[in-house]
Amino acid sequence: MIKLAIDAMGGDNAPIEIVKGCELALEKYDDIELVLYGDETEIKKYLKATSRVEIVHTTQVVDMGVKDPVSAIRNMKDSSLVRALKGVKEGKEQAVVSAGPTQALIVGAHLVIKRMDKMHRVALAPIIPSLDKKGRILLDVGANIELRPEHMLELGIYATVVAKSYLGIENPSLALMNIGTEEGKGRDLEKETFNLLKANPQINFLGNIEGKEIMTTSASIVLTDGYTGNVLMKTMEGTAKAMGGMLKEEIKSSLGGIIGALFMKKALNRFKKRMDASEIGGAMIFGINAPVIKAHGSSNAYAFSNAIKQARTFVLNDIIGKVTEALKDVEIEESRD
Amino acid sequence: MIKLAIDAMGGDNAPIEIVKGCELALEKYDDIELVLYGDETEIKKYLKATSRVEIVHTTQVVDMGVKDPVSAIRNMKDSSLVRALKGVKEGKEQAVVSAGPTQALIVGAHLVIKRMDKMHRVALAPIIPSLDKKGRILLDVGANIELRPEHMLELGIYATVVAKSYLGIENPSLALMNIGTEEGKGRDLEKETFNLLKANPQINFLGNIEGKEIMTTSASIVLTDGYTGNVLMKTMEGTAKAMGGMLKEEIKSSLGGIIGALFMKKALNRFKKRMDASEIGGAMIFGINAPVIKAHGSSNAYAFSNAIKQARTFVLNDIIGKVTEALKDVEIEESRD
Repeated sequence: MIKLAIDAMGGDNAPIEIVKGCELALEKYDDIELVLYGDETEIKKYLKATSRVEIVHTTQVVDMGVKDPVSAIRNMKDSSLVRALKGVKEGKEQAVVSAGPTQALIVGAHLVIKRMDKMHRVALAPIIPSLDKKGRILLDVGANIELRPEHMLELGIYATVVAKSYLGIENPSLALMNIGTEEGKGRDLEKETFNLLKANPQINFLGNIEGKEIMTTSASIVLTDGYTGNVLMKTMEGTAKAMGGMLKEEIKSSLGGIIGALFMKKALNRFKKRMDASEIGGAMIFGINAPVIKAHGSSNAYAFSNAIKQARTFVLNDIIGKVTEALKDVEIEESRD
Repeated sequence: MIKLAIDAMGGDNAPIEIVKGCELALEKYDDIELVLYGDETEIKKYLKATSRVEIVHTTQVVDMGVKDPVSAIRNMKDSSLVRALKGVKEGKEQAVVSAGPTQALIVGAHLVIKRMDKMHRVALAPIIPSLDKKGRILLDVGANIELRPEHMLELGIYATVVAKSYLGIENPSLALMNIGTEEGKGRDLEKETFNLLKANPQINFLGNIEGKEIMTTSASIVLTDGYTGNVLMKTMEGTAKAMGGMLKEEIKSSLGGIIGALFMKKALNRFKKRMDASEIGGAMIFGINAPVIKAHGSSNAYAFSNAIKQARTFVLNDIIGKVTEALKDVEIEESRD
């Protein structure tokens, strides 16, 4: 049995969609047990499942708009988020899934479960849509404002293990986000990271890519610092949303458009689905001593069940163990850390 | 009469589309004269206009894929690009339009025409599509790998003048690209730039925005460093293109889609047009002693004529003079430069 800790109160649609998502996952996977941390009365309103599920009552909720995540984690000891993390820290469950506030979850995972010995930075790594429908791992999208080349290498190795064990890609390739494809492009960070990636036998390094290739590159992993990755991911999101809006506007502005849309309703729905985050599951937090999955804040039941699926796969494939093994010969000077 | 220097050999479709673009512009604006720098025989093949146009024969072309722009500019003295820049330097023409290689044009403008006394950095500033159809100025998208806060301020003031005089916005607002909207977010660069922008009376500062707002923000100007801006702009481009491709794929995969597309052909064309760079004209190079417009490398005649229109407006409104005036009280320590 795989036992997962669920932050039942985290997210815009908690607890109802979270609880429903748990039910979906329980139906789908008979090898999982879920422990729901949250308000027992609230959870019981929606929970139908009776086996392989347990509620641990908590009294606090870390607000989605929390301004100071560090003090929230320190002070809200009985929040569903902190209690779920603690459950994993104490070995009661093997992984955490939360749709709660991103920075609080990252900080909480760091403070409560702690970083892996071999990892010097944690990273937030979503799976982003790609034209070939395979999806790819983008990191870091905002756990770190600045990263050193050695951290980028470490995170690249982590992502390689995940692409193999989670996405099932045999020899996953990695590309470095840059402002040009030639070697020698970019800031010192990119130049030095390029050399480290090129020299490392564990990385199948494709070289630099530009932003315009983000959805079409053959790379399974796109590596960048947390500032750039955050801007990049949100720009993709914003552009996709605005384009969807423009398309709708133009269609609705003429009779031909309205009639046409009736004919191609299914095609338009398939199009929409391909850009939909709920198909993809959550973002992974790399570098923590246990798998931590951050489901989208606006997750519905289906999206949340996909995030649970991710956590299950992480445990099933012992990804943390494999990363530890992969990093055993990578030495980073602690003095610079 | 406004006299403009045209690099007739720059761009993927030069000289044919460049020459045709010149003809379009000459028809549209009777207050311009164009000097076409390039291969006389080639240009004459396509040129029909006889008045307000002149050819200056040149023997070299800076290749679109040029690897070392600095040595290209230094060594190719008789290239259409360098000769067009020189024409403006010598006061023969008032602005330059080129669809040639971006970095070569930036470096060339810098080396030949020189930077304005009051500007410590140049920047590449395209007008990007927006949901409200007004367009907005994004800078820097790659003239500088790194910028200091003072440079960001300087560039923000330049962009404000352009938004007023070129886009015709009365009190244009400026937003800083960041990883969160609250004050205090981001790297040191964003934190310090935030304070400078907030304190400057010439800037109508909206605060931070995230990547997801890039097409919907009410700001007329989005400011960021050259590395981030380059990734951001190319990510928009790549996402838009990939989404267009997905939409096409889904439409073509079913009969309903194909029939629907016939009905909404006009709506789909309007949609396409709204994301089309050729509607917008070229990117502006800020900080040079004369207006320099970089038309898209793949410009067709229409797109190139829009870039000429931009150069004409810059001269007509004396934007360089207005920027000099706006910057007269802004002091940047030269020692740190």
